[in-house]
Amino acid sequence: MAFRTHHCGQLTLSDSQKNVTLSGWVQRIRELGGMLFVDLRDRYGITQLTFNEEWDAPLLQEASRLGRETVIQIEGLVIERSSKNAHLATGEIEIKVHNLKVLNRAKLPPFTIEDETDGGDELRMQYRYLDIRRRPVRENLLLRHQLGLTVRIYLSKLGFAEIETPFLIKSTPEGARDFVVPSRMNSGQFYALPQSPQTFKQLLMVGGMDRYFQIVKCFRDEDLRADRQPEFTQIDCEMAFVEQEDILKTFEGMLIHVLKEIKGIEITSVPRMTYNEAMRTYGNDKPDIRFDMKFVELDEKLRGTDFKVFTDAELVVGIRVDGKADFSRKELDALTDYIKRPQIGMTGLIWAKHQDDNTFTSSVNKFFDSNALAAWGDSFKTKAGDLILILAGNANKTRKALSELRMHLGNQLGLRKPDEFAPLWVLDFPLLEWDEESKRWHAMHHPFTAPKPEDLHLLETEPAAVRANAYDIVLNGHEIGGGSIRIHDKGLQKKMFTLLGFSDEEAKKQFGFLMDAFEYGAPPHGGIAFGFDRLTALLGGQESIRDFIAFPKNNSGRDVMIDAPASLNEDQLKELSIGLIQAKD
Amino acid sequence: MAFRTHHCGQLTLSDSQKNVTLSGWVQRIRELGGMLFVDLRDRYGITQLTFNEEWDAPLLQEASRLGRETVIQIEGLVIERSSKNAHLATGEIEIKVHNLKVLNRAKLPPFTIEDETDGGDELRMQYRYLDIRRRPVRENLLLRHQLGLTVRIYLSKLGFAEIETPFLIKSTPEGARDFVVPSRMNSGQFYALPQSPQTFKQLLMVGGMDRYFQIVKCFRDEDLRADRQPEFTQIDCEMAFVEQEDILKTFEGMLIHVLKEIKGIEITSVPRMTYNEAMRTYGNDKPDIRFDMKFVELDEKLRGTDFKVFTDAELVVGIRVDGKADFSRKELDALTDYIKRPQIGMTGLIWAKHQDDNTFTSSVNKFFDSNALAAWGDSFKTKAGDLILILAGNANKTRKALSELRMHLGNQLGLRKPDEFAPLWVLDFPLLEWDEESKRWHAMHHPFTAPKPEDLHLLETEPAAVRANAYDIVLNGHEIGGGSIRIHDKGLQKKMFTLLGFSDEEAKKQFGFLMDAFEYGAPPHGGIAFGFDRLTALLGGQESIRDFIAFPKNNSGRDVMIDAPASLNEDQLKELSIGLIQAKD
Repeated sequence: MAFRTHHCGQLTLSDSQKNVTLSGWVQRIRELGGMLFVDLRDRYGITQLTFNEEWDAPLLQEASRLGRETVIQIEGLVIERSSKNAHLATGEIEIKVHNLKVLNRAKLPPFTIEDETDGGDELRMQYRYLDIRRRPVRENLLLRHQLGLTVRIYLSKLGFAEIETPFLIKSTPEGARDFVVPSRMNSGQFYALPQSPQTFKQLLMVGGMDRYFQIVKCFRDEDLRADRQPEFTQIDCEMAFVEQEDILKTFEGMLIHVLKEIKGIEITSVPRMTYNEAMRTYGNDKPDIRFDMKFVELDEKLRGTDFKVFTDAELVVGIRVDGKADFSRKELDALTDYIKRPQIGMTGLIWAKHQDDNTFTSSVNKFFDSNALAAWGDSFKTKAGDLILILAGNANKTRKALSELRMHLGNQLGLRKPDEFAPLWVLDFPLLEWDEESKRWHAMHHPFTAPKPEDLHLLETEPAAVRANAYDIVLNGHEIGGGSIRIHDKGLQKKMFTLLGFSDEEAKKQFGFLMDAFEYGAPPHGGIAFGFDRLTALLGGQESIRDFIAFPKNNSGRDVMIDAPASLNEDQLKELSIGLIQAKD
Repeated sequence: MAFRTHHCGQLTLSDSQKNVTLSGWVQRIRELGGMLFVDLRDRYGITQLTFNEEWDAPLLQEASRLGRETVIQIEGLVIERSSKNAHLATGEIEIKVHNLKVLNRAKLPPFTIEDETDGGDELRMQYRYLDIRRRPVRENLLLRHQLGLTVRIYLSKLGFAEIETPFLIKSTPEGARDFVVPSRMNSGQFYALPQSPQTFKQLLMVGGMDRYFQIVKCFRDEDLRADRQPEFTQIDCEMAFVEQEDILKTFEGMLIHVLKEIKGIEITSVPRMTYNEAMRTYGNDKPDIRFDMKFVELDEKLRGTDFKVFTDAELVVGIRVDGKADFSRKELDALTDYIKRPQIGMTGLIWAKHQDDNTFTSSVNKFFDSNALAAWGDSFKTKAGDLILILAGNANKTRKALSELRMHLGNQLGLRKPDEFAPLWVLDFPLLEWDEESKRWHAMHHPFTAPKPEDLHLLETEPAAVRANAYDIVLNGHEIGGGSIRIHDKGLQKKMFTLLGFSDEEAKKQFGFLMDAFEYGAPPHGGIAFGFDRLTALLGGQESIRDFIAFPKNNSGRDVMIDAPASLNEDQLKELSIGLIQAKD
């Protein structure tokens, strides 16, 4: 006999009077005056099993002894329920059980297998195989599957070929730290795990593959922050014979398609903003544009003459909070405390209220009379009932702080709606950024990113002003992807390496094979990579990626379920020609 | 201006008189009395560009200076060709070029970029990005893409979810060697790269995911044979609430679908054979059934009484080679030499010919008269013109040798047609095999494989006779996949570990998390894994996997293009708390 004729999310009234076989887990048992109900669960849903003293008393006895999460198989008759459950796909029927077979007993799980569980994070991770039985986690993983498949089909239809690039590659000291793999057959030598398939996808373009993509694991040995994983997944893409516009069009098409397919949301295009505009308007290169609160800068006139905090500041900038002139003193103090936290480090928050009678009041009434405040109101385009919040200080720091405050308010006021999706291209990133520590220019994107042709003449005289043909795609305040047009000209590439402080020898050692490849006819090309974990999480309406990964690691890079990493035995180390050395304090 | 309006495989007569822009690589240049033709190549095809002294002499001059593999962009008019090329999709048209722009010059490639290249293996690997420009390699990679996508769509439609399992896991000393990854954050500890997602897919079944698949890289640190790679790709699958029959049906469905979609070949079912039958009939657990030459064993009567080679042998077994009674002495000697090679190690080959006049002759006429030989003929079902080849000796060795001879003849006689596909299930593998070295039983498949219920009673008394619910799928003489029904009962699993010589402690240390998981309600489950590289190669009509991998490694596990593995610098080693030790001779 097969283990089942149907699954637990399948049967409806139209199956009435059918004899069926189901298998699954015991989710819940209820006894009710001579009757007993078992919720039988599998991946597809829940079906109610019914036992009745009058039908079969011993069978009811047996069912009453089933523990939660026991795996059972039953045979029975589909019958109409007297009290239907509209929340359940199978809520119109129940199964009158004839036969019950226990397939596997279960110990009491360490936390409840319900939508809302009583299990803490560490416990859930340790028993991840039980956590996955919970509907929210299961649906996250199924969403991830659906997203991956949708992307693959979409890109394939556009002529992109998924090509696997190698995992055992070569370490490059640039950038983040590599995970490395000692080679037994090449004693004393190491492979590295890829941080991205960047160079390989460029080589595929040199190889004429024209349109490449790959949904692929990447690895980065970084000190882990809350929502980072040492292994993560990218949707990695590259195209030949394209300009920036081709790439933007192609991949906003992909995102629009995905939002339609996965979320049923129709958007027609993705707005664009330059990096400079994003920084000036939102203090952030990945603004959440689901809500407004755009930055308004106070010019000299608006800053007045007496208030030193403003007159001395490099930048005075604020936001309008619609309808929040009724914020209490306590609420305003809490916002002040927020921006004074060491992570943000501002010294004070100035507020002004556009009151219902169209007069203004502020935290700096001493320095600004009502005319001055009304001028602020004009500048911020307030209406009665609106609140203005202003920060002042060093330009970069103040923008960053105001951005944090804006996001904080967005969360607090429920403006960041998880079911709303507002993608945005951020364009024209600077090519270079100055690194104070090493006292040299670093590539903001990576060393193969092409400068904008119209800025090329500034490369030596004013490197900071050179913009790159680089772009990020942002969704709801998170960078979900980024890329660039690559340099395909070896002369320009050489100039870039010089600018970045690479000697010819260093450049050759690290990127020699790519430089060599470029000698043999590289086509113009460019690409993009999406963070697959992040994109899935956002489509799932959440900000943390961990529950969208089947078996994630904790913040120390450990898998607490399998207890990895772990020690090796001496023989394994010896074979690899490596030994452990004591870390010095 | 966009880099192209069309690609190089697109334009036909219906595009005549259109102005187009194309980009690509210069494949070939021919001059012909005042005219010059350039074959322009991209991934999609080749388009002929035409230059004419009369139209534009300087442009023709410029074109004549283009080197092979230069990247160019042209504008021109689509015109009908006078001499059409039926072999080319674009063979009816050519482009009358107005404008020519060199996008990137190219050095002379180290080998010709043609279907048949003059480049040796090492050179092709070193410049793999140029090798990929060659049509056969490019088509292999596109086939691989198409196969992956086809499998993904097929399995997804059946409710399988692709779920990514982790790459940084835990080393288990059992089985093949792991590649390991030192953990910087957990000093002195190591991750291992997965040899397969086996335990994780079983945990996903415990987690109720019901149907899982993944096309995924796996890693094995083995001494590499000719056609093995340290990193390889599997189509990894698992299902819950299934018996062996469910799995066979599901995945022969997949293979049938793939053959139809990718090769246009219709087969309706996959034949089945037990392991014992395969060994007896083909001397091989992965027989190529595209051709016959089934083994025929000589019983005592047929062996005669005088010929010691036969009378002393554990096994006398032969094959019939249809229509090859005309093999010359030299040809027969060559076959004898073949089975005498040290890799095979037989001492002699006996032949008999069913001659055109229906008499027999043989290499052992001294011992067998024509009646005796005619009895062989009956047994082998020969007809006039057929050849019989016989080996004798130790049963296992002789079967293996005859299998090699059969395959050798299959190749030699052109019976292994690359465009013919004959899949086969091999079933009922032994559960255990005796390991002479360690003097204990090993799991033939893996320790989680379920014995056949009807053989369970033999587990302690006659372990060698216990068959497993394990199956391989074979295509054209290659194992392309294999799997098993897993043990989901912890009592039976414990018994298996004992039989395999694991102490409780060892079992707990290595598989503790899986054993724990099985305490919480594991469903009956089973699965299969396909070798994706091998399957792609076979569908591409080839036996070697290397040209179906974009960036393969050589037999020393090196990537000669990027020159990996390589040394690390001291700082990197120190951060990982490891040091190099000298390998002792």
